[in-house]
Amino acid sequence: MTYAAPIRDWLFLLDEIAGIGEIAGLPGHDDATPDLVQSVLEEAGKFAAGVLAPLNRAGDEEGSRLDNGIVRTPDGFRQAYAMFTEAGWNGVPFDPDYGGQGLPWAVAAAVQEMMTSANMAFSLCPLLTQGAVELLQAHGSDAQKRLYLPNLIHGRWTGTMNLTEPQAGSDVGTVRTRAVRDGERYRITGQKIFITYGEHDLSENIVHMVLARTPEAPPGIKGISLFIVPKFLVRADGTLDGRNDLRCVSLEHKLGIRGSPTATLAYGDSGGAVGELVGEENRGIEYMFTMMNNARLSVGIEGLAIAERAYQQARDYARTRVQGRAADGTDPTPVPIIRHPDVRRMLMTMRAQIEAMRVLVAFVAGSLDRAKRHPAAAERARHQAVVDLLTPVAKAWCTDTGCAVTSTAIQVHGGLGFIESTGAAQHFRDARIAPIYEGTNGIQAIDLVGRKLARDGGTEMRALIAGMRTTVEAARKYDGGQYLAARLDESIEQLSAATKSLVSAMQRDRMAALAVASPYLALVGTVVGGWLLTQSAMAARRRRTDAAEDGDYLAVKEGIARFYAANLLPQAAALAAAVLSGGDTALALTEDQF
Amino acid sequence: MTYAAPIRDWLFLLDEIAGIGEIAGLPGHDDATPDLVQSVLEEAGKFAAGVLAPLNRAGDEEGSRLDNGIVRTPDGFRQAYAMFTEAGWNGVPFDPDYGGQGLPWAVAAAVQEMMTSANMAFSLCPLLTQGAVELLQAHGSDAQKRLYLPNLIHGRWTGTMNLTEPQAGSDVGTVRTRAVRDGERYRITGQKIFITYGEHDLSENIVHMVLARTPEAPPGIKGISLFIVPKFLVRADGTLDGRNDLRCVSLEHKLGIRGSPTATLAYGDSGGAVGELVGEENRGIEYMFTMMNNARLSVGIEGLAIAERAYQQARDYARTRVQGRAADGTDPTPVPIIRHPDVRRMLMTMRAQIEAMRVLVAFVAGSLDRAKRHPAAAERARHQAVVDLLTPVAKAWCTDTGCAVTSTAIQVHGGLGFIESTGAAQHFRDARIAPIYEGTNGIQAIDLVGRKLARDGGTEMRALIAGMRTTVEAARKYDGGQYLAARLDESIEQLSAATKSLVSAMQRDRMAALAVASPYLALVGTVVGGWLLTQSAMAARRRRTDAAEDGDYLAVKEGIARFYAANLLPQAAALAAAVLSGGDTALALTEDQF
Repeated sequence: MTYAAPIRDWLFLLDEIAGIGEIAGLPGHDDATPDLVQSVLEEAGKFAAGVLAPLNRAGDEEGSRLDNGIVRTPDGFRQAYAMFTEAGWNGVPFDPDYGGQGLPWAVAAAVQEMMTSANMAFSLCPLLTQGAVELLQAHGSDAQKRLYLPNLIHGRWTGTMNLTEPQAGSDVGTVRTRAVRDGERYRITGQKIFITYGEHDLSENIVHMVLARTPEAPPGIKGISLFIVPKFLVRADGTLDGRNDLRCVSLEHKLGIRGSPTATLAYGDSGGAVGELVGEENRGIEYMFTMMNNARLSVGIEGLAIAERAYQQARDYARTRVQGRAADGTDPTPVPIIRHPDVRRMLMTMRAQIEAMRVLVAFVAGSLDRAKRHPAAAERARHQAVVDLLTPVAKAWCTDTGCAVTSTAIQVHGGLGFIESTGAAQHFRDARIAPIYEGTNGIQAIDLVGRKLARDGGTEMRALIAGMRTTVEAARKYDGGQYLAARLDESIEQLSAATKSLVSAMQRDRMAALAVASPYLALVGTVVGGWLLTQSAMAARRRRTDAAEDGDYLAVKEGIARFYAANLLPQAAALAAAVLSGGDTALALTEDQF
Repeated sequence: MTYAAPIRDWLFLLDEIAGIGEIAGLPGHDDATPDLVQSVLEEAGKFAAGVLAPLNRAGDEEGSRLDNGIVRTPDGFRQAYAMFTEAGWNGVPFDPDYGGQGLPWAVAAAVQEMMTSANMAFSLCPLLTQGAVELLQAHGSDAQKRLYLPNLIHGRWTGTMNLTEPQAGSDVGTVRTRAVRDGERYRITGQKIFITYGEHDLSENIVHMVLARTPEAPPGIKGISLFIVPKFLVRADGTLDGRNDLRCVSLEHKLGIRGSPTATLAYGDSGGAVGELVGEENRGIEYMFTMMNNARLSVGIEGLAIAERAYQQARDYARTRVQGRAADGTDPTPVPIIRHPDVRRMLMTMRAQIEAMRVLVAFVAGSLDRAKRHPAAAERARHQAVVDLLTPVAKAWCTDTGCAVTSTAIQVHGGLGFIESTGAAQHFRDARIAPIYEGTNGIQAIDLVGRKLARDGGTEMRALIAGMRTTVEAARKYDGGQYLAARLDESIEQLSAATKSLVSAMQRDRMAALAVASPYLALVGTVVGGWLLTQSAMAARRRRTDAAEDGDYLAVKEGIARFYAANLLPQAAALAAAVLSGGDTALALTEDQF
């Protein structure tokens, strides 16, 4: 169960898909030189493989435990976290003025994939802190930024997101936690559930970002405010005061990510936890949403990351497990199962799914950097539109695909895959959360269709499709690119027809249209994956003319793109057919008829 | 987490798909009257729901435990097993001369689905016993039948299959367990792993069916013999003697089916366990294979069963969980999530997948009854060919689909689905074994393509396709059947083209052909499911003219067939494209390039 970070793949994608050369020319990113980026990825890979990966299996077995109100993370997590923060991994994409490294999001995405592959349960702690940092960077007062950001960016303190309550899951507007003004601060009372790293022993303080409702607030999502509620109160000089009035009531016994504590938190049992308002009252949901898009991309990366880890383990097993004879009858002695065509197909499928996810992540992260830093407002807006459109796709498609890959990895192991000590089962269990949290995948599909597609009548999607057609034209001119171009062209036509049909359906019958939102999202993911893999294959072909390049590595890129085009891209036809048939058949039964 | 058996669905399918009327006319089945069949299903449903289902969750939590060589099944299993055998459920399809009920396999399939839905971990014990019964019925001596069958069919004794050893998984020919002749019996020495219910506290004796190798046996699968090795030695009069020389060394800690013990068994630590040869030496694999086809259908039924259980739980949750507002804006108050179009789509997808699996199982089981009992040899052969062709499909396609459905059931639950106490996660974990055991799904695909398709050049598959075309013609004449006919016709063409291409590929390049065996199997499952659902919809439409029938129920059958045709059957296009593209792209990378 060793892990080797895909450094070379990421360097290729940063160059060819994210466009790191151009990103390094954006204001504030001039230190993102090729040398620096390479050394960051290599160090991250080393840390992930050497420090985090070895803790993954034992962390799952041991789990986080609640003991008299104290949560103990698995053995080794504390020391690893100290090393993680000390090395600066907690602050990769953040503002250097507050101690961050100021690197592009595209680079941060690569680093995040590696840390998550190595140990998903561990990686959730910095992930949640990242959310808190983004919230405060965007909406905190100067004083709040000064007080909280340096500690959160360093990782000395960690952050959490407190949205969910028993009656308020996907419908966050029904939050009941109360916040009553008390001088300059607020008193918070209520219960929050499913709080990732809501309590733990890794950091000096935990900064909870809590959604709550003030007494006079309007009902629904327009009456929710956002508060900073630290575990230990913070004095104006940044030193810690006593415990705030909040406590961990219980931890969940979960299917996966068992190393990470998922807490139920009780606020205000002794009169009210002290909270600071972020921004203005009643704008909490709006603030949350500015952070949400990035968090959704990060969860998409989890799908990719866990798939990569599961793939590596399955591949290593397939190379060493000797069972059966070669199907072509050439060899009478037993062979490693990687020689069997069906096992080879499983590995190739996993590999192609992973590369498709990674190319999508690299593209969205590269767009995000331009959306944040490009000097021209029109360019920022153009890239932001791509980010908005593809973030729900990255979240849902990568997490569903991540589940599929981890399941195939079990299958490669045969009976041994079902035995917990093998470790393949853990990836399968860990991966299953990602389609659920940070907005279920159904909600991502509704975001894509009900908001992103509906608000501009499909304009941005058509612009994306136009870009894909340019790639088809370019691929037609490449030696070996004609096959990819033809397959891609077909799938683009299917996406185009489905988009047109769905935009019109949204105006006619919203219920029926939303009933095909999920296959539409999968269609977009499938076709965008095929598009970007085609670009990747073309870049590989171009590079092969350079004698200094590794032709073998580049041939693999082309081989993967062809496998995807022949075996996975045809799914577009099936998904488009479902969209084009409309949602009526999905809604045909009454509630009682189920 | 209550369970209600799908009695009505099975009665419909027994009539319309399995053809129970005709089966009841076969020799030996004249007591399978409609009244009797209905009462058997009702009683089975009552037992499954009332006795087995309540033990499922606790059984998973508690698990089976090994204590000083003694395996204790979870609390309640012993009592339930006693009731199960007392009521005769262990012997549904078996010979009444040995105490069985002599009911058709189609009825036994329905009963098995119910028991497995209720408690998959429990159901494995009778499932393995069933395998031992079939082996002895087919290949045991008269004395062996007299001695073992009545106790196994009753369930007083249980059976196991001992194939796997650490180096002998899918490649059973590498078995090393030794059997040395000792007078009339043999002495068995060796270690077997992954033995389901290899040791437990449910029955008076455990009859292990053990594959082993005699000293002079030829290498490979042609040198393996089959032995009866009971836990307690059996005297000629059927009474039990002392312990045999075998013991349970350990139990596996598994991803799922944790209530069931999966044992490592050591044979012959004290000189050799006493075993009786079944049939002749060196024919053990051949004997195993006569039993295997039925066992594979049974594992396919597990996929269906666990999917049904997961679906029921998700549906019940969706009806009661209130979250969010109606998408059509008609209702400002929060609604049960079953009203949300994406949730409705998930439920409808699960339901359609389940009905497609069940219709396939009913068809194969009905064919099996004719293959066993039809008075005309040609008819027996014709039906056996269908059974041979579709058994690997039922095994692999139903178990893969079962995994998909249990995953969707988690998704319907949102965050709660990831919490173990909810129970949805257990179904997801339990289901994951079925694609692995009794021949991995990859092996099923190779059986379908490499043996069944290759041995007759696709003749049987073409015959099946011809039958499907008859249904297309019939559906075209039905009111409302035109849409189903058109979609089915398309998918049949895709299957036909893929079959032709694959038969020719098998002659040209066996490796490449087998590299698309898995998508081909999925294609067959998808199209056969669409075909039989179309038949089911036509039968429903025909019945609607009868005023005594429940029109609402029949309309649901038609609605499900239409949803499947519009949303799931189009997968045939994607799968056929993968088959038609050939296996070359799957084999494009070298082993080192992974």
